[in-house]
Amino acid sequence: MGDQDIKKILEKAVSIGSEHVEQGNCASYIPELSKADKHNLGVCILTTGLDKYTMGHTRERFTIQSISKVISLAVALQHCGFDKVFSKMNMEPSGDAFNSLVKLDLTSDKPFNPMINAGAITTAGYLVQEVSFDDMVAYARKLCLDDGIVMDEKVYESEKNNCSRNRAIAYLLQSKGILESNVEESLDMYIRMCSLSVNAESLAGLGLVLANGGRHPESGSRLMDAHAVRVVKTIMMTCGMYDGSGEFAVRVGIPSKSGVGGGILAVVEKSMGIGIYGPSLDEKGNSIGGQRMLEYLSETMGLHMFAE
Amino acid sequence: MGDQDIKKILEKAVSIGSEHVEQGNCASYIPELSKADKHNLGVCILTTGLDKYTMGHTRERFTIQSISKVISLAVALQHCGFDKVFSKMNMEPSGDAFNSLVKLDLTSDKPFNPMINAGAITTAGYLVQEVSFDDMVAYARKLCLDDGIVMDEKVYESEKNNCSRNRAIAYLLQSKGILESNVEESLDMYIRMCSLSVNAESLAGLGLVLANGGRHPESGSRLMDAHAVRVVKTIMMTCGMYDGSGEFAVRVGIPSKSGVGGGILAVVEKSMGIGIYGPSLDEKGNSIGGQRMLEYLSETMGLHMFAE
Amino acid sequence: MGDQDIKKILEKAVSIGSEHVEQGNCASYIPELSKADKHNLGVCILTTGLDKYTMGHTRERFTIQSISKVISLAVALQHCGFDKVFSKMNMEPSGDAFNSLVKLDLTSDKPFNPMINAGAITTAGYLVQEVSFDDMVAYARKLCLDDGIVMDEKVYESEKNNCSRNRAIAYLLQSKGILESNVEESLDMYIRMCSLSVNAESLAGLGLVLANGGRHPESGSRLMDAHAVRVVKTIMMTCGMYDGSGEFAVRVGIPSKSGVGGGILAVVEKSMGIGIYGPSLDEKGNSIGGQRMLEYLSETMGLHMFAE
Amino acid sequence: MGDQDIKKILEKAVSIGSEHVEQGNCASYIPELSKADKHNLGVCILTTGLDKYTMGHTRERFTIQSISKVISLAVALQHCGFDKVFSKMNMEPSGDAFNSLVKLDLTSDKPFNPMINAGAITTAGYLVQEVSFDDMVAYARKLCLDDGIVMDEKVYESEKNNCSRNRAIAYLLQSKGILESNVEESLDMYIRMCSLSVNAESLAGLGLVLANGGRHPESGSRLMDAHAVRVVKTIMMTCGMYDGSGEFAVRVGIPSKSGVGGGILAVVEKSMGIGIYGPSLDEKGNSIGGQRMLEYLSETMGLHMFAE
Repeated sequence: MGDQDIKKILEKAVSIGSEHVEQGNCASYIPELSKADKHNLGVCILTTGLDKYTMGHTRERFTIQSISKVISLAVALQHCGFDKVFSKMNMEPSGDAFNSLVKLDLTSDKPFNPMINAGAITTAGYLVQEVSFDDMVAYARKLCLDDGIVMDEKVYESEKNNCSRNRAIAYLLQSKGILESNVEESLDMYIRMCSLSVNAESLAGLGLVLANGGRHPESGSRLMDAHAVRVVKTIMMTCGMYDGSGEFAVRVGIPSKSGVGGGILAVVEKSMGIGIYGPSLDEKGNSIGGQRMLEYLSETMGLHMFAE
Repeated sequence: MGDQDIKKILEKAVSIGSEHVEQGNCASYIPELSKADKHNLGVCILTTGLDKYTMGHTRERFTIQSISKVISLAVALQHCGFDKVFSKMNMEPSGDAFNSLVKLDLTSDKPFNPMINAGAITTAGYLVQEVSFDDMVAYARKLCLDDGIVMDEKVYESEKNNCSRNRAIAYLLQSKGILESNVEESLDMYIRMCSLSVNAESLAGLGLVLANGGRHPESGSRLMDAHAVRVVKTIMMTCGMYDGSGEFAVRVGIPSKSGVGGGILAVVEKSMGIGIYGPSLDEKGNSIGGQRMLEYLSETMGLHMFAE
Repeated sequence: MGDQDIKKILEKAVSIGSEHVEQGNCASYIPELSKADKHNLGVCILTTGLDKYTMGHTRERFTIQSISKVISLAVALQHCGFDKVFSKMNMEPSGDAFNSLVKLDLTSDKPFNPMINAGAITTAGYLVQEVSFDDMVAYARKLCLDDGIVMDEKVYESEKNNCSRNRAIAYLLQSKGILESNVEESLDMYIRMCSLSVNAESLAGLGLVLANGGRHPESGSRLMDAHAVRVVKTIMMTCGMYDGSGEFAVRVGIPSKSGVGGGILAVVEKSMGIGIYGPSLDEKGNSIGGQRMLEYLSETMGLHMFAE
Repeated sequence: MGDQDIKKILEKAVSIGSEHVEQGNCASYIPELSKADKHNLGVCILTTGLDKYTMGHTRERFTIQSISKVISLAVALQHCGFDKVFSKMNMEPSGDAFNSLVKLDLTSDKPFNPMINAGAITTAGYLVQEVSFDDMVAYARKLCLDDGIVMDEKVYESEKNNCSRNRAIAYLLQSKGILESNVEESLDMYIRMCSLSVNAESLAGLGLVLANGGRHPESGSRLMDAHAVRVVKTIMMTCGMYDGSGEFAVRVGIPSKSGVGGGILAVVEKSMGIGIYGPSLDEKGNSIGGQRMLEYLSETMGLHMFAE
């Protein structure tokens, strides 16, 4: 596929995505997030062959939000190992919204998976025992191939002032003996990680590293343990798009992770990383234009994991 | 019924209750509570005719725990009025355990009733805007006809250090806009109220005041608003014995409220207050010997609200 | 209170009830029920002193629906005894809608109480082993002091053709070993009982018999076992008004049972039976005008169980 | 990898699987299923290169049970199209047990996916409007490359006599307007499909056809629509191993579907079909030895979808 073909496909993808942004809305539960322009859309592709394609708002920074759960899980696997990480949580899709407390209280003694808030706060509890937040920023920069990543102070403050539900989840986890670290420190780590400022290109970078099995695309040096990469990609496949993960897997078939800041991280195995920005969300919290763009790219470029 | 008859009935009641204490256990989730002697049993009756009957451990002090929800509700009704109190919670039995978060998160936007923890913390949120804890101690002393009520510091500390689940409930309430006061202050008021130190006689005193429509049994002076008394007694009837309230109503038929400290407050309309102590609990958190004693008293003395 | 006073109170009650009927609607899930005129309202009082007061549509017949659960429970207690009846179900308010399957499947192995559909179908399973439907009609006539009670064929057919949810409940009960009788026969008994045709006067009759401890108000002959009467009245108090029972107990304080046909049966202990007709329902399935009428009567005539 | 290498790997796989069969049990809720010998284990591999490898009990027949959901979904997609099939159900993992009614009644108006019973009965409802059961047997034979498939009459009878919970699900679906076909006919189709008699080789055959994009491995003729194949494989990946699908995806990473008869169907994209027999089940209903065998094969042969 030639460069011009890909350019045209990206152009068309943004055009298709644009048709749907009006139906969604920016996240409103955190005041800072609601200030985004819901018409913005951008897509960046980075290939294992080191080609880069961009279209639309790919340099505009926004907060990573739930996509940070991928980085946190990767680092936790690296530092604590698979067995410890999954001693206190499962790796099952939950069928519930990402911020639900119900299953945790009702039918399970463990968070369903590391991609829902309860699981990610559990993961943060592991992290605070192992690394500093500065270490985590360094990890994020390295894995995203983006030295420009910093914490967005305004979003951090805004989230910190509106985190009652996550604090409730954290204390419930403590009451069940799941979260053994200090609750407020763990929650702070969780919120800081959500407040990292990325753009579509950073997400494409992270996607490329994952597509490349955890190795740097140029140097080939290992940035992440191979088994951790496999775990992370599989969990993105089954749990990455909130309670829309199953339908997304059918329609798009690319392991992805979305955040309510409007980002989507997508990993085309052994081939490319895709980063998306589009802050207009559907009712499940996924970028509405971003999903359409990925569906179009998957169809046109044959990226579905079960494409013929 | 003569004094000697009642003495004999109480003696028999304690004997029947004693047969069941081995099947239960003292509350274990708070270390201080687990130190109680589960064989202790006591019952005190105070009649509107100013007679007093006691048997067993009626002067031993223990913490009031959930029975404080009755006092807190009464004071909240007094200070804020029925409409405000029930603007943020309902008055329905929940069918769930007292410390469940599920219904609150799943099917309802309000705590089911003021007798479950979510409702009582909501009530504490009203109280901290109106009164000090010292005021609440004064109310408790007045309503229980017992000047000896103080806060048990050890239990308070122990509860404060083991309140993750209640803290989770409180923050969930805040996230839903139900708890509008400061969360930590409301939670502290809630825990302090649970830590009030009473005995079976204090509970009989409170029962007598409620049986007497809120008026002092000797002076006749009004201690509580008549409508508040009615509301409190009705909610005790439908929700007072945790998720065993329905069966207790059938078997005993006396509006009652239990606490995991082992106390039961019972109100025989226009006739008497009954206070019970028996820290051996069944799996729902109700005094196992206390329930048997009340069932026996109800049967023998014809105290069921639908007794012929 | 003189006859003229009571007449005036009833007149005012109907007038108050009428103000609310527009806000509700007739039951729509069964075509036949939706044909009722939602403006109809009637109230009948029968006293233990054998006085009778009526106002409005008290002779218009409608189907008894869930109020039949009271009769079925009474007969089951009579024929099988308390222990057997409650070996397969509990007597706790459920906090859920009357036709919910959730609790039954999720947190409990038994129906919560005999007033929700799952419990009433369980009760019907006991009945079909003991009595014929003709026997049940005879019981209904006797307990309601109304020889005119028959089964409404049209409603029966209509319900039979729209009972998928109840059939689902019945088979779920069978799968759990709760319903041991033939499922279709038990379901048919349940539906037939719901289709009995009564009026406000029949319900007042039933209320009077219950208020009178199960004895015929004139002859004094026992129509129902005393203990069964007590059980029935208590369960009406805690569970009779669907998931609005708790608030109704606070506001009205009279053991009652409603049906989606628009009827309410109310029992003022040792004093009177009240029968209500008003087919305009609130969202919980209770007669909207009927509840307002009862609240007014309770307030004006001091009928609340905890009235001073 | 040479033939002898694969033989050795299969031998080792069966040996590893055998170590775990004692920890599980045959399905007991249907008497016929409990008669299986839980020590049996077999594995068959069929490659796109037309090689065949077998080890252990690969010719012993057992009932297909939930693996039939794959065939039924494929045929429904073929006959009704994607849009119609998913107008009445979703494609999300549920986080609940396969036979749960809770989510269906509580939080969703549609079955979560076609791999849980509620979804499969919905699918059966589509099928009875389009095809006969004989047609379905013909489809099963064609897709499994096995002319020996018949319905096991004994298991069919046994299931038919023990299907109260599935009947409850079916009537609940009818009550919600999801199942529009005749309930008993749909349920019968569902049970008949579960009673199809296959062996590990039939499942390997079905796996091969799916791995081959729906085309016959020898003739290349299309047996199933390409898009239907993609949908089926994706849903197997996210929902195929009951509420253990997420962990299985992480550990094994091969789209699979299990049945309580002890079978597992596994599809290695563009490479091979694997059929497993091992009737000793874990508590989620998946073959306990079969899962270990697949985990070993995935690890040793590099079959994980995200293997390096």
